[in-house]
Amino acid sequence: MQAQGMDEIHTVAVDYGQRHRAELDCGARLSAEGGAQFHRVLQLDLTQLGGNPLTDSNFAVPSANEDNQIGTVVPFRNMLFVTLSAALAETQGILDIYLSPVRDDHESYRDCRREFYDLLEKTLRLGATRLADFRVHTPFVEMWKKEVVRVGIELGVPYAWTHTCYEGIRPACGKCDACVERLAAFAANCIVDPLPYK
Amino acid sequence: MQAQGMDEIHTVAVDYGQRHRAELDCGARLSAEGGAQFHRVLQLDLTQLGGNPLTDSNFAVPSANEDNQIGTVVPFRNMLFVTLSAALAETQGILDIYLSPVRDDHESYRDCRREFYDLLEKTLRLGATRLADFRVHTPFVEMWKKEVVRVGIELGVPYAWTHTCYEGIRPACGKCDACVERLAAFAANCIVDPLPYK
Repeated sequence: MQAQGMDEIHTVAVDYGQRHRAELDCGARLSAEGGAQFHRVLQLDLTQLGGNPLTDSNFAVPSANEDNQIGTVVPFRNMLFVTLSAALAETQGILDIYLSPVRDDHESYRDCRREFYDLLEKTLRLGATRLADFRVHTPFVEMWKKEVVRVGIELGVPYAWTHTCYEGIRPACGKCDACVERLAAFAANCIVDPLPYK
Repeated sequence: MQAQGMDEIHTVAVDYGQRHRAELDCGARLSAEGGAQFHRVLQLDLTQLGGNPLTDSNFAVPSANEDNQIGTVVPFRNMLFVTLSAALAETQGILDIYLSPVRDDHESYRDCRREFYDLLEKTLRLGATRLADFRVHTPFVEMWKKEVVRVGIELGVPYAWTHTCYEGIRPACGKCDACVERLAAFAANCIVDPLPYK
């Protein structure tokens, strides 16, 4: 989130009960490294909705070649993340919210398309109490993951500190959909992913 | 929430850290009395956003005659409630969601107007994973609170089991904005509110 008229960056991570909790530690470290002024972890228990492999260790995370990636969808997860962030932003006088869906997700996940964020932005503007000019930025929404990796390389992103694996393990599993997509994105750039894999 | 093609009613209450927690007990009792098949209390910690008298006992609830009712607004509270309910509804195959903003709230609370729910409904439809025909019903949105009280009287609503007071106390304080509006709505119907007041 970016405070209005300032270069101040606030980062938000959501602890939603994900089994890949490693991403919360990675997020805090990357936030500090990136020079954010504030980092907040918001609690939003999505395990109470039940029955999802990303939040319930009784379910196996599907491998990338399995035809049930839809099972990893937590309904309205992105919408809840953005709305909860907007609520925090409103208390801080912040209007600009950023998140990073990518083009690869468009087919499977309808809440990763720009048209969805256009409508969500309008809804936030109409429902806000004090502020009315929220902007929801999705700078990578029309870029493929391999292009995003390239931008990150050029900007010096410390990819060794990032986390992607749905299993939540380090070294990463290398088999879940998230790992396979990440490895392919690095391979497309002829770059070795610095993350250790099993 | 109403399961599609059925008369089955599921009720949802949200424990968001409100000091008027008495409403959660009242909700469970009214749900059972009303014949709902399922009642769920969803956890959504809004105290982490900070600084609101409804969720933070360090702040005093304003009296109705104080000019700071806006202070009792938790940003995007209704939007978060509906979206979280929609996430639960999607896991249950439910498409119809009901909530009850009333006309008295239009002026102060922009997220209590029908135009907001029209847009929220569109956003849910665009962002849903499997289902696309969510309907957000607000049957009382164009009715004044005194009219809603009248409908409830006619339907035999056990008002003695309801809770309104922002202070969260029973007997109710009778002084906060919520109590004052409730008392006025009963008085307008020439009916004595069966709830005990201090």
